[in-house]
Amino acid sequence: MLTLDRIYQAAHTLKGIVRETDLIRSQGIVPGCDLYLKAENLQITGSFKVRGAYFKISSLSDDEKKKGVIACSAGNHAQGVALAAERAGINATIFIPSVAPISKIEATRRMGANVVLIDGVYDDAYDAAMAYQEENGGVFVHPFDDIDVIAGQGTIGLEILTQLPNLDAVIVPIGGGGLVAGVAFAIKMLNPTCKIYGAEAVGADSMQCSINDKRRACLENLATFADGIAVKTPGVITFDLCEKYVDDIVCVTDDEIATAILTLMEQQKLVAEGAGAVAVAAAMFSKLPLDGKRICAIVSGGNIDVNILSRVINRGLLTTGRLSELTIEMLDKPGQLKEVSTIIADLGANVTKVMHNPGGENTDIIGCYLHISMETRNRNHFLEIKQAIKNAGYLIIED
Amino acid sequence: MLTLDRIYQAAHTLKGIVRETDLIRSQGIVPGCDLYLKAENLQITGSFKVRGAYFKISSLSDDEKKKGVIACSAGNHAQGVALAAERAGINATIFIPSVAPISKIEATRRMGANVVLIDGVYDDAYDAAMAYQEENGGVFVHPFDDIDVIAGQGTIGLEILTQLPNLDAVIVPIGGGGLVAGVAFAIKMLNPTCKIYGAEAVGADSMQCSINDKRRACLENLATFADGIAVKTPGVITFDLCEKYVDDIVCVTDDEIATAILTLMEQQKLVAEGAGAVAVAAAMFSKLPLDGKRICAIVSGGNIDVNILSRVINRGLLTTGRLSELTIEMLDKPGQLKEVSTIIADLGANVTKVMHNPGGENTDIIGCYLHISMETRNRNHFLEIKQAIKNAGYLIIED
Repeated sequence: MLTLDRIYQAAHTLKGIVRETDLIRSQGIVPGCDLYLKAENLQITGSFKVRGAYFKISSLSDDEKKKGVIACSAGNHAQGVALAAERAGINATIFIPSVAPISKIEATRRMGANVVLIDGVYDDAYDAAMAYQEENGGVFVHPFDDIDVIAGQGTIGLEILTQLPNLDAVIVPIGGGGLVAGVAFAIKMLNPTCKIYGAEAVGADSMQCSINDKRRACLENLATFADGIAVKTPGVITFDLCEKYVDDIVCVTDDEIATAILTLMEQQKLVAEGAGAVAVAAAMFSKLPLDGKRICAIVSGGNIDVNILSRVINRGLLTTGRLSELTIEMLDKPGQLKEVSTIIADLGANVTKVMHNPGGENTDIIGCYLHISMETRNRNHFLEIKQAIKNAGYLIIED
Repeated sequence: MLTLDRIYQAAHTLKGIVRETDLIRSQGIVPGCDLYLKAENLQITGSFKVRGAYFKISSLSDDEKKKGVIACSAGNHAQGVALAAERAGINATIFIPSVAPISKIEATRRMGANVVLIDGVYDDAYDAAMAYQEENGGVFVHPFDDIDVIAGQGTIGLEILTQLPNLDAVIVPIGGGGLVAGVAFAIKMLNPTCKIYGAEAVGADSMQCSINDKRRACLENLATFADGIAVKTPGVITFDLCEKYVDDIVCVTDDEIATAILTLMEQQKLVAEGAGAVAVAAAMFSKLPLDGKRICAIVSGGNIDVNILSRVINRGLLTTGRLSELTIEMLDKPGQLKEVSTIIADLGANVTKVMHNPGGENTDIIGCYLHISMETRNRNHFLEIKQAIKNAGYLIIED
């Protein structure tokens, strides 16, 4: 059974092993509330997972330690277990589905773990890990449904209360529920009036469904780019703790998560992964009664592939009107490109890409399409440019 | 004259106004040395500049405060002065050249400053600020060449020594020299054996030239995307302090800075601007004798335009072979695109963009070009794909 004692013991064990991450006040992200960010993306391995993994491993008997540990993960848990095992001086065998990003596989290997790549997805890797355990022994370190793992994550709750004692609410990302279970328990034991809110991705709302149905739900499909919280079924222990200690759970869309990632980069200079940004997204998009309150949102991790980050930035710029795209139908005759680009330049936008294509079957045979990408100030700036081009007699193709 | 007393006084004045930013240990960025990052990108306003600006403003007489302050800047200094003035409850009039990014202008306005946009570049805005001061009075807050501003920046040196007492060297970005002057003075007074290294961009090496020539140099042109340290002439006071207290100054290229920015994002989850990444670049690219040493690199700021960040990511991915581009000359006949894309898919790369263009004057009339962008694991992975396509009989156009 989880006790406050166990979480304090975890905090003691983790001293000098993991970072006591910074609590950063955020001004302006969510008007009307006093928001602080617990920056677990700045944790070693780039996510909070190392806390639970290390405490679990340090709680093993000497015999168990000798046999080494086994884990299965495509992401942060793999790196957490690998580093924790390395620091504890024991062997770790980690099963990773072959679809995992090469960068995460390499990071896990660099930390000294024995990585076994399994063709297929998470479930295949899990089966392989179980078969390996049956044959070779060793303790399987569960990513969330384990009292010691939960106690390790709960140390974040203790740190938050030390860093900011008079707090009204904490918002915590939920995947399998290990983080929220530990944090909620620690905080409710010490400060029962502090609200604990969970945040999930719309396409991976297994805990919200479970709480609503009063029994553990199993999602058929997962649909979110926040891979760190894409979990089909919550744990038995974590579900139980969430029922008891979490006040409410809200969901955010992938677009809201992407906007939160972009905002964290621009306003706070922090790189967050999708799972790491859900709590901030929940605050930004008014999913919770936060007005006038002092709030902490946990930024749980920052391990996002830079290719995806690049797409998230692009999407965010398009959504907020700072990058705009326009298709103009025009006659293929001299001077037209010049005229259009003069209008754009005069209105202060910066063209970043131009494509000039022959027209399709619905245009004149001498018609053509001009696709323009440009940096604009905001949505209104773009509309102003569009109107000016229309006023000059051009036809704009609306999506 | 700068004294240690003045820096301690600045530290006292800044308490509760600015953040005591985190010192983050970095593992793996620079093999062979124990590297710590002083994360001033996580400072309020996104850069260290607010320290010097606030201490300067708080040192003014009541009469001076009544008249308000004047500043001229296109970047971090503008935001630093604006926020410092707002916190001190006085007026700030800030002259910004119209070429400045709209995001920085808006950020300065949001902090309550009276922003005056001046057509032209920095020098034009500076002239306008001087004319305004002549007419209206008010204290001009210099971005670097001022004892109080330098003392304010020097508080970073005190914090570093408290956070990590036994330190071998500190690497500090240099623009006008305010940051390095303050930090070098503070640290040399308290721990004279600690080395102080300055880092400049190759295209803005005014302090290095000045030290070499033993008199303040004036660069004709500035050529770096690290706008925060693009300064043509160091200050009189800062040059003097650098001569006395800085052990060595090294320069890094824009490509090295871009790689450092990408590395800070991927490994440390920190967003740094160009100026903020020069010290890390100097360590990464072995410009200094750091082997076996305990080092601190100051990440001075994180205010980078996301459009530029997006380009930096792209450049970094191309440089490290994780994004690759290929142009293939082929005959415009059915089945060829399929064959090429099968080769790429079989070797595990992910195509992100395809362009299919008619050939030029040197190709057959039925020839065409296929431009492919793809995500690859590294440079070798790309070379492997290139070879496989060649082996299948295609002609690859080398740049």
